[in-house]
Amino acid sequence: MEKVLKDITPKSSDFSQWYVDVIRKTDMVDYAPMKGFMVMKPYSYRIWEFIQEAMDRRFKETGHENAYFPLLIPEHLLAKEAEHIEGFSAEVAWVTMGGSEVLPERLAVRPTSETIIGAMYSQWIHSYRDLPLLINQWANVIRWEKATRPFLRTTEFLWQEGHTVHRTAEEAIQETRQQLEIYRTVIENYLAIPVVQGVKSAGERFAGAVDTYTLEALMGDGRALQAATSHFLGQHFSQAFDIRFLDEDGVLKYGWTTSWGSSTRMIGALIMVHGDDKGLRLPPLVAPIQVVVVPIGRGEERNRVLAHARALVARLREIVRIKLDDRDEFTPGYKFNDWEMRGVPLRIEIGPKDIAKNEITLARRDTGTKISVAEDQLMTRIPELLKDVQDELFRQAHEFQQAHSYAIDNYQEMDHYGYRGFFRGDWCGSEDCATRLKTETGITIRCLPLEESPVTDHCVVCDEPSQYRALFARAY
Amino acid sequence: MEKVLKDITPKSSDFSQWYVDVIRKTDMVDYAPMKGFMVMKPYSYRIWEFIQEAMDRRFKETGHENAYFPLLIPEHLLAKEAEHIEGFSAEVAWVTMGGSEVLPERLAVRPTSETIIGAMYSQWIHSYRDLPLLINQWANVIRWEKATRPFLRTTEFLWQEGHTVHRTAEEAIQETRQQLEIYRTVIENYLAIPVVQGVKSAGERFAGAVDTYTLEALMGDGRALQAATSHFLGQHFSQAFDIRFLDEDGVLKYGWTTSWGSSTRMIGALIMVHGDDKGLRLPPLVAPIQVVVVPIGRGEERNRVLAHARALVARLREIVRIKLDDRDEFTPGYKFNDWEMRGVPLRIEIGPKDIAKNEITLARRDTGTKISVAEDQLMTRIPELLKDVQDELFRQAHEFQQAHSYAIDNYQEMDHYGYRGFFRGDWCGSEDCATRLKTETGITIRCLPLEESPVTDHCVVCDEPSQYRALFARAY
Repeated sequence: MEKVLKDITPKSSDFSQWYVDVIRKTDMVDYAPMKGFMVMKPYSYRIWEFIQEAMDRRFKETGHENAYFPLLIPEHLLAKEAEHIEGFSAEVAWVTMGGSEVLPERLAVRPTSETIIGAMYSQWIHSYRDLPLLINQWANVIRWEKATRPFLRTTEFLWQEGHTVHRTAEEAIQETRQQLEIYRTVIENYLAIPVVQGVKSAGERFAGAVDTYTLEALMGDGRALQAATSHFLGQHFSQAFDIRFLDEDGVLKYGWTTSWGSSTRMIGALIMVHGDDKGLRLPPLVAPIQVVVVPIGRGEERNRVLAHARALVARLREIVRIKLDDRDEFTPGYKFNDWEMRGVPLRIEIGPKDIAKNEITLARRDTGTKISVAEDQLMTRIPELLKDVQDELFRQAHEFQQAHSYAIDNYQEMDHYGYRGFFRGDWCGSEDCATRLKTETGITIRCLPLEESPVTDHCVVCDEPSQYRALFARAY
Repeated sequence: MEKVLKDITPKSSDFSQWYVDVIRKTDMVDYAPMKGFMVMKPYSYRIWEFIQEAMDRRFKETGHENAYFPLLIPEHLLAKEAEHIEGFSAEVAWVTMGGSEVLPERLAVRPTSETIIGAMYSQWIHSYRDLPLLINQWANVIRWEKATRPFLRTTEFLWQEGHTVHRTAEEAIQETRQQLEIYRTVIENYLAIPVVQGVKSAGERFAGAVDTYTLEALMGDGRALQAATSHFLGQHFSQAFDIRFLDEDGVLKYGWTTSWGSSTRMIGALIMVHGDDKGLRLPPLVAPIQVVVVPIGRGEERNRVLAHARALVARLREIVRIKLDDRDEFTPGYKFNDWEMRGVPLRIEIGPKDIAKNEITLARRDTGTKISVAEDQLMTRIPELLKDVQDELFRQAHEFQQAHSYAIDNYQEMDHYGYRGFFRGDWCGSEDCATRLKTETGITIRCLPLEESPVTDHCVVCDEPSQYRALFARAY
């Protein structure tokens, strides 16, 4: 029975190896033959589909429409916004040949689409009546990364990128915040991951942004992960791409733009926040299989139990994503371990005794507890229990985050905690301090949290008067 | 009022220009700054989403799961199946640089994914218990085309590609046919496009396939369009990629594979089958806006009518995709033309007189007829009418197809019809005849239809005894 788990390194002994073991053993991903590329197998892609559904519905409810822009971007377009090209040039994959011909101009495989979309928007927008323009794109992007890690940092990844244009700065900032709130809702309510909302310091901003809003989550090893970002781009891109509109007052003005993105990276966060030594623990709302049924019984009993289980699954299929594990080459014990490893929230065990008593046994993946439930109560109990599991996973993650959040007065205090956790302290605002911190400790300013008490104190690095309350952490 | 339509070339005078005018004027697409690339604007992307939903649900119901494989494929992998690389090599875009480094091996931007998926499948499949493997991917692909046309042939397009592995040839062939049937259902029932089902002749097969099944549709100009294809790949790819499984009898065997694809090209077919001189005509099931409400009234009446219209729209929003056109810068007449051009299936006109009578006027885009409907009947009448429009568009398209299908005895008869239409005749089976036909007339063998009477006659090209009944046409 231990066979299933024998290849998973314990989380506590080597978090990094545990992560890689889990995603391979649970059929979430496989490595492609090219370095840095991964294959999203059905078990992780289905999670992505649930995230997409939850996000996309909210994007549409807030007036956004989806569109699709070209994968390849001519070099001269990518270079139009100076900070942007500087930020991305080292990470671009270049198409230089089409068929047997060398192209007159290199084409970038999009690392993000502000430039090609900006070029189109400048042609689409003429009047204030054309605003706001609210478009989202679901797409693949490529960033030529040196060190990669499945979901967290891969050469190619899937994401959505929203790109909007507004009449006023206020409206654009409101959009930026609204989309951040959609991300927070989906990440906290579906993925059960608590986040800290904040704005990035200048040194950590998106290349070309005026302000980058971010959601920071704490992983199981005490490192931070940026779960989604939303950028107020000011007029940087509208000036670079000449996105202008004739306002109601007859004056030709530059639009105010935003962009916001979230990616398959969130699946990496999901794994690292909830997983344990046994493998994955998936929140029910994004679990491809919410309930697995394992029939128990040998010989003649086997067929009777299987028939009973099949009838049960047929009924429950109406209300939950359920799977019957009727494989005959494995023992029930093996199957228990296997589905625990895959993070299925609830397991139904059903044997001859249960059938005789009109009961079944339910095992919760989040707490490990087992409950006996009368069969005629299942249709109401299972949705309740799934809700409980969802809530409990969030509660545990939140508790972990709170237990690993520390107020600090001086950056050297972080050493005591092994530089793992969320550290809150004051910052003078100078990039010199940020750089010194990063060089000495590997710690970065994750964000300036949105909901913090006013700053009253001194910088944790240089001891000079502080300007900001900051959240510090080592990050993925 | 004619202003809206003034830029659309009449369909009858220049079909090709009409097509381009329609897709630009209706905000379906825009041209990207790079030759051959297009932008799918929200109005066409929404149609793609409806197609995706209809297809994806059926894929899942038949046991398929979605996954995601890398965009870039190393050259040596692409070259593993000889016919395949020969068929695609001229169309491949190559990534040769990552960041500032020249790559040791060129990477192809996928023109299709049989090769990268084959390489992964060979690692995933070990036993007959791993079969069938049923995976689909929604993705973008690039084919470096010389002559492009929005939707029909663009350098980049969006599609789905299914890739499956089976234990026996029979099962793989059954899968190929089953997926063709899914395509037929969605294309006929959602897009309202009648198709002829058939198998491709050897010269028209997918590069690497044993058999390619196809759906051929007839466009409004009498040219054929291949709407979707499903390929039985035999063991070509399993041998090239070493996809083997240990069968129940203890023998190591090669799997039997299939692939099947459908793309944004279907949107081009949708336009060319149903459009008329006034612009688009969209089947209700895939129309982004199913009903548009145009309020009529000036001065003081205006506000009263608008309030009434708003309340109506709020009620109807529960059952249909509805839009209120409350723009005050345009006249009702302008709006009528505008929404007709955009192909909205039903228009509601509502003015002071209608309100007084508790009636509204409904105008059908498919037939141009107007109907008065009591307001309290709308909740039942509108869904009925949308169903009628859906059926009527299919009926008209089917009638057109029938009226332009001709039985021929000799290929020169096609000249009488200007080589436009579906021509059914016998074929000896030699590629020489197919080549001669193409060279002389531009006509190709679209398929060997699945449901045809047995062949009894002579080849329409060489007059020798025939082997096949074929469908001939000029094709997009």
